[in-house]
Amino acid sequence: MKMNTWLKIKCRVFEIVEIAKPGDVVSKIFDIIIIALILISVVVVIESTVKVDIKTERFFQALNTFTVIVFTLEYAARIWTADLLHPDCTPGKARLKYIFSGMAIIDLLAILPFYFPYFIPMNLIVLRTLRVLRLLRVFKFNRYTDSLSTIGTVLKERGYQLISSIFVVMVLMVIASVLIYTFENPQQPEVFQNAFSGMWWAVATLTTVGYGDIYPITIAGKIFSAIIALLGIGLVAIPTGIISAGFIEQIETKHAQNEEHGEKCYCPYCGKKIK
Amino acid sequence: MKMNTWLKIKCRVFEIVEIAKPGDVVSKIFDIIIIALILISVVVVIESTVKVDIKTERFFQALNTFTVIVFTLEYAARIWTADLLHPDCTPGKARLKYIFSGMAIIDLLAILPFYFPYFIPMNLIVLRTLRVLRLLRVFKFNRYTDSLSTIGTVLKERGYQLISSIFVVMVLMVIASVLIYTFENPQQPEVFQNAFSGMWWAVATLTTVGYGDIYPITIAGKIFSAIIALLGIGLVAIPTGIISAGFIEQIETKHAQNEEHGEKCYCPYCGKKIK
Amino acid sequence: MKMNTWLKIKCRVFEIVEIAKPGDVVSKIFDIIIIALILISVVVVIESTVKVDIKTERFFQALNTFTVIVFTLEYAARIWTADLLHPDCTPGKARLKYIFSGMAIIDLLAILPFYFPYFIPMNLIVLRTLRVLRLLRVFKFNRYTDSLSTIGTVLKERGYQLISSIFVVMVLMVIASVLIYTFENPQQPEVFQNAFSGMWWAVATLTTVGYGDIYPITIAGKIFSAIIALLGIGLVAIPTGIISAGFIEQIETKHAQNEEHGEKCYCPYCGKKIK
Amino acid sequence: MKMNTWLKIKCRVFEIVEIAKPGDVVSKIFDIIIIALILISVVVVIESTVKVDIKTERFFQALNTFTVIVFTLEYAARIWTADLLHPDCTPGKARLKYIFSGMAIIDLLAILPFYFPYFIPMNLIVLRTLRVLRLLRVFKFNRYTDSLSTIGTVLKERGYQLISSIFVVMVLMVIASVLIYTFENPQQPEVFQNAFSGMWWAVATLTTVGYGDIYPITIAGKIFSAIIALLGIGLVAIPTGIISAGFIEQIETKHAQNEEHGEKCYCPYCGKKIK
Repeated sequence: MKMNTWLKIKCRVFEIVEIAKPGDVVSKIFDIIIIALILISVVVVIESTVKVDIKTERFFQALNTFTVIVFTLEYAARIWTADLLHPDCTPGKARLKYIFSGMAIIDLLAILPFYFPYFIPMNLIVLRTLRVLRLLRVFKFNRYTDSLSTIGTVLKERGYQLISSIFVVMVLMVIASVLIYTFENPQQPEVFQNAFSGMWWAVATLTTVGYGDIYPITIAGKIFSAIIALLGIGLVAIPTGIISAGFIEQIETKHAQNEEHGEKCYCPYCGKKIK
Repeated sequence: MKMNTWLKIKCRVFEIVEIAKPGDVVSKIFDIIIIALILISVVVVIESTVKVDIKTERFFQALNTFTVIVFTLEYAARIWTADLLHPDCTPGKARLKYIFSGMAIIDLLAILPFYFPYFIPMNLIVLRTLRVLRLLRVFKFNRYTDSLSTIGTVLKERGYQLISSIFVVMVLMVIASVLIYTFENPQQPEVFQNAFSGMWWAVATLTTVGYGDIYPITIAGKIFSAIIALLGIGLVAIPTGIISAGFIEQIETKHAQNEEHGEKCYCPYCGKKIK
Repeated sequence: MKMNTWLKIKCRVFEIVEIAKPGDVVSKIFDIIIIALILISVVVVIESTVKVDIKTERFFQALNTFTVIVFTLEYAARIWTADLLHPDCTPGKARLKYIFSGMAIIDLLAILPFYFPYFIPMNLIVLRTLRVLRLLRVFKFNRYTDSLSTIGTVLKERGYQLISSIFVVMVLMVIASVLIYTFENPQQPEVFQNAFSGMWWAVATLTTVGYGDIYPITIAGKIFSAIIALLGIGLVAIPTGIISAGFIEQIETKHAQNEEHGEKCYCPYCGKKIK
Repeated sequence: MKMNTWLKIKCRVFEIVEIAKPGDVVSKIFDIIIIALILISVVVVIESTVKVDIKTERFFQALNTFTVIVFTLEYAARIWTADLLHPDCTPGKARLKYIFSGMAIIDLLAILPFYFPYFIPMNLIVLRTLRVLRLLRVFKFNRYTDSLSTIGTVLKERGYQLISSIFVVMVLMVIASVLIYTFENPQQPEVFQNAFSGMWWAVATLTTVGYGDIYPITIAGKIFSAIIALLGIGLVAIPTGIISAGFIEQIETKHAQNEEHGEKCYCPYCGKKIK
């Protein structure tokens, strides 16, 4: 039946664009091509900021057009097969659901800047900034790599603690910025112009980046700076501790689940395995 | 009864200013307004260090006056309802107990600098420094965020170990400062003037900030600097390890408590759940 | 029998060049000499970049020749005794297997640059770069130190998670480089020439190195830089958390194995040891 | 009896200079005085590098003399009571054993530089360097603080793994220094003079200090620098992971010991406590 063939093609396309069964060579090749094109498009964005001769420019523009066309086709294929992704919805609802999912919005934003300029005239700098969105294509890797979700889960579970520690850092930064301003402004009014300069210094010191464009020269400022730099160590240590604990908890949860499911079960008396 | 109505209002105010039952919309709105005002007052403090025209200045002064009035009213409400916070004390004792609690002192210090200048004339720079205390208002968030207490508990439990490791760093810093002074002073007497310069270098190197305003140029100084910089890695690694262990211990304590309370209990023989 | 004596010598050589029984003094001395020669050859490579007078030059050339000769003899001895390393293969196969093992290739690359120039004329700079391969000799320590393999196992087990986190950093870096270019290029076109300059800045900021050769001066650029620097903390925290969890998991696996083998077995009722 | 009184005094002195019973007020005051004097003597060492007027100089010299006298008396008291520390040895043996213990050597080195100049004339710079040894007095705190030993135990237990990771870093540093020299020397021969300059750069980059006195300017050098800076993250992450695991293992060992000693023992069936 013709109808059946059509459905078969659709299923095949769905298998190719979404994660397929293991051993599906065509789907794997498709994934590799998409990843390669994403990397190329990233190079094209970066290249667009470099001044090159007209020939190279044209080559990169052609490359850009090519990647956008492939991504557009991919986007269309994903929308077309969205009803297979959400089989419990009606086809229309499934597609809408897909279009407004995070990944699909990123996909759309990745191709839109290419079609946009033909409708609305915009100045070049804004356009260039819009092009950055293309880089979001790279997040498509998210679909392919599995471990990212583990990291994501840990960060989510520990979210409140991480945000709390970031909040403490923010408070510390504000206090530090006003204090360093008070210490340093009379001595170097050009460098520490206001508390915003102090904040820029606080960021560079607490994160231990230390560009060297702004630093205290008074004794009080240096002592205060030493305290802030040492507290900056805590800024690394506390989130690291939180995240470490999160990863370890997850491993233990997995072990507990395994034990519950009877996969690994040792007698506490003699250490032998029990069926 | 009139007396009863008065008590009801007091209870309501208490519910609003302190953490209320879940689902209390008015209390939630109050919290959000207070947080917003704290953030605004932080901006006002930072802005006070920037030179602006007279109109903007006046706008920020008005903003300042407004936030201080709200915080004063809040402070008064908290003192008024303090007897509900400590129901086992007499009203007078409860209020005194509240006034001398850490949070209330911060609240008072946050509003005092505004009223202070009308009584005692002080020079502007000292005043500006006193304004920094306003930022302490931000610690009120402590009341609202829960995870901070977990972090606090871990830091407290591991306190002795953290202080010990900080002490070792201090000793290292003193030794490093004298040694680098000995190496570098003959070559760059202007940069490494004395052991205090050496200490400033030691802080920048051990915390890996590295502003670049002071660094060794002799071979001995560079070799010594390399050793100190590598030890600086340990300066991060040891407290991080301590804090990580603290967080993990806390998670395990919670698990143990859950098991003790019979919430999760698995047979060690077969992994099945036991009532 | 002569044949037997020959085999005995071969066995002895094998014991000496490979890890021997504990208490074998000759083998231990051999190991120490080899480690010393590797360190000397590293010094020779570094020295080759320093301009010295002709006498010192000749001394180092002699030293170089000596170490290469010893390493060549060692390499020959290892190939000769390779059939004892793989007793299940034929002698020829065993030797081929050894020659194409990772360690043997490093050994060969360590001595080849010395013999190479006599066959093919090459320019001096390339030769100097080839000499770097000599440093790979140092990896021979790998054979002697045991703990390295534990670290290796942890990094391998956690490989996917580490690569995922590195990938996220790469994406972040590309986005950051284009955005900072957009912010800073109009203000400092000489410093932020193109997105590649932005990427160099992103590396220095995210890794908290902060050389200070490139940093934002606009307000938007500084705010963005602060966000990136704070995310740089995460860049340290996430892999550290992953690696910590890996080491802890390994310790627990060992404990579990010990319990399984009945080495340590406590009654869960009373805490007493059970045979 | 007179003999007995003498022994009593000795015992009392021993209790005071060594760690005494809890509640011993005199011993506690002695400890605090010694700690204060150590801190003062550290200030004196640092001050000796600052140029001050003759009066201040004399004040600090007097302070120095005073602390050295107290430390000498303390050292004498410790040697005198050493036979009570090692009651199983003869008095002479006990004293020799004490004199050659690590702590006693540090104590001696802390006071020797004061008496030294009266016997052998030495130039001032060497003397100044010898004074640094005085700082070793601070390690006496080791006797008083307890948590340091926990940190020490963890570092010792994990010693092999930490040394292995440091070794890998050393190898990486040597390779990096030669490669960056090869990349950068042709472009900036003044900055990257030889592989030693490269090594100085490698230290600053791998430890993320980044003074900014030396950094690559070529494209190849920058790409290589980015890789090294990212590997520098691992330089922090691996030892941190090792140390974290060490602290967690220690906590678990303690828990296991507690369970073994029957302090905390819960039924695995119902979570109730068992006597």
